[in-house]
Amino acid sequence: MSNRIETLLEEMKKNNLDGMLITSTANFYYLSDYYTDPHERLIAVYVSHSMDPLLMVPAMEVDDAKKAGWSFTIIGYQDHEDPWQLFADVLKRNEKIPKTLGIEHNHITLERYEAIKGILPNTVILDAQEILANLRVIKNTKEYTLLKQAAELADFGIDTGIKAIQAGVSELDVIAQIEFELKKHGVQQMSFDTMALSGIQTASPHGTPSMKKINTGDLILFDLGVVFEGYCSDISRTVAYKSITEEQEKIYHTVLAAEEKAIKASQPGTSVGNIDKSAREHIARAGYGEYFTHRIGHGLGIETHEYPSMHGNNELPLKAGMCYTIEPGIYVPNTGGVRIEDMIFMTEKGAETLTKSPKELQIIE
Amino acid sequence: MSNRIETLLEEMKKNNLDGMLITSTANFYYLSDYYTDPHERLIAVYVSHSMDPLLMVPAMEVDDAKKAGWSFTIIGYQDHEDPWQLFADVLKRNEKIPKTLGIEHNHITLERYEAIKGILPNTVILDAQEILANLRVIKNTKEYTLLKQAAELADFGIDTGIKAIQAGVSELDVIAQIEFELKKHGVQQMSFDTMALSGIQTASPHGTPSMKKINTGDLILFDLGVVFEGYCSDISRTVAYKSITEEQEKIYHTVLAAEEKAIKASQPGTSVGNIDKSAREHIARAGYGEYFTHRIGHGLGIETHEYPSMHGNNELPLKAGMCYTIEPGIYVPNTGGVRIEDMIFMTEKGAETLTKSPKELQIIE
Repeated sequence: MSNRIETLLEEMKKNNLDGMLITSTANFYYLSDYYTDPHERLIAVYVSHSMDPLLMVPAMEVDDAKKAGWSFTIIGYQDHEDPWQLFADVLKRNEKIPKTLGIEHNHITLERYEAIKGILPNTVILDAQEILANLRVIKNTKEYTLLKQAAELADFGIDTGIKAIQAGVSELDVIAQIEFELKKHGVQQMSFDTMALSGIQTASPHGTPSMKKINTGDLILFDLGVVFEGYCSDISRTVAYKSITEEQEKIYHTVLAAEEKAIKASQPGTSVGNIDKSAREHIARAGYGEYFTHRIGHGLGIETHEYPSMHGNNELPLKAGMCYTIEPGIYVPNTGGVRIEDMIFMTEKGAETLTKSPKELQIIE
Repeated sequence: MSNRIETLLEEMKKNNLDGMLITSTANFYYLSDYYTDPHERLIAVYVSHSMDPLLMVPAMEVDDAKKAGWSFTIIGYQDHEDPWQLFADVLKRNEKIPKTLGIEHNHITLERYEAIKGILPNTVILDAQEILANLRVIKNTKEYTLLKQAAELADFGIDTGIKAIQAGVSELDVIAQIEFELKKHGVQQMSFDTMALSGIQTASPHGTPSMKKINTGDLILFDLGVVFEGYCSDISRTVAYKSITEEQEKIYHTVLAAEEKAIKASQPGTSVGNIDKSAREHIARAGYGEYFTHRIGHGLGIETHEYPSMHGNNELPLKAGMCYTIEPGIYVPNTGGVRIEDMIFMTEKGAETLTKSPKELQIIE
């Protein structure tokens, strides 16, 4: 049995849980080593004290799950079958109905919850998502190595994007070039839709790239990441094309100083909220407080966004093994936006910045 | 108010629903015309008979939502704020607490359901996802046009992929080329991770492309689609590189004949189950029944997979305005797999195939 499942079983004992039924893609992968995107189909790992772990996947994926290393029972269901009924049959046949069952309240749909209640009417169902979130939030050495490699590929993506900037190219041309080079280097999947925004478009923190051409005087904001062997990276950089206004330059240096303050504040034991505040205060003092409209960052690992949520009210203390982004931004309508984002890995000795792309203001010629 | 919201209000009246709170990305887009990928953040449209529609989005997206055309109230919440509390405040201020509220049971998480119950303790909460699914399943002329354009781009993707096949290229090289060309043509987003599998890898219906090189005698299976102005396409083709075995050729022709039978069976009024059966019976008769391990297809529109689920037990009759895939496949371990997939649009007169890529067996030199 994998160490992860053994650790989970210990945590379940502390929480008086007989069984846990895991249905989120990320936790399923964490426990099974099998990565799959099920769309609307059900995937699940069932872990309990009284029987071996069990996997539920669509029939067409049974072989893939075995190849990924799963050596216990697999329920492979056809599209016209009810996987819940098949699962109930296995539990009943083994007389192993759990008295208490943990599920992921922040992931499971109400429909699936009702299906579980239907097959296990006498089981007490509890929210156990924090147990797995707390296991996943502390990364081990192997995970550190994967995150570092994912970060290196993200740096390569930024470098490729900056080199692609020239007269006449569109935002989508730049993205095409970034993803082309990354895929040539073996990247199977981006961790989210690559962003390259230019001009006043940069004022939308979640804007959509288009065939808009890059013009002299544009800011260009990149936000991208890759999935490397199941682990995500995430980086943002902002550059200027040929020229920059005084106002834009002030915004750039304000964001950069705020980012550096937040990195400097990142010490084991410091609260997440303090990291957010250290950047936010700097931006507010410079007069841009109302234009920094999101949290300072988010944890990342198997998911691009996972624990901890790096917002100002989070009192969680930072610990060795945590990985998260620091990404302050200022977005001024009709002037433009700047975001600078790095991936931070917390160690016993302090914060290590995994992404290495240069941060001094670059005016691309 | 948009026609879609007006139609929804009529359906709500028939179902005795005072309000509906829509939180899925796809239905949110359908009703608001604002497309956003919220990750773990909440987005919602609230529709009710007693007040104007209301949007909830992260604060940093308020301007984007307005630009997309939303002209009613928007609650923009900061990352450290509780959007449910802000929503409850608006309802209480207006004295518009709904007696009955519809939500999407197949999408909403248990955590959010409990949050809603917390702010609306006296409201009866009901599953209303089918109301929207039934509206979305019938596409109008504008949606038909978008799906057709998305299908054309998918055809272009297949053409690009086939042209990219040559000695020494890897699966990921081929994918890099396909997506590069599509992005150059203005595609902002693929509708799912592009698939190009080769050799015995093709036997995994949901396999993961890698840096494996394409070799003489490989089957190459493509599965790809794009999002065009919010609407998804989806196509699969399988070709051979330089040579093909007799067994593989038999599999190819069996899949092709099964696909053609299922298209031929697609008539207004025919049940979805019959479409699946017509292909499945053909494949079973050829001796490959156990290797066709998934349903014949799925509806598509704003989502790559939406209503109707095209499986053998679905008795839903096909109607004009439905759009779905037909995609039989045979996957024989250690021999290889073949899938051929088209997008079908049902009209009063019968099925129109939106994807046009050639289907006769191609042996690429």
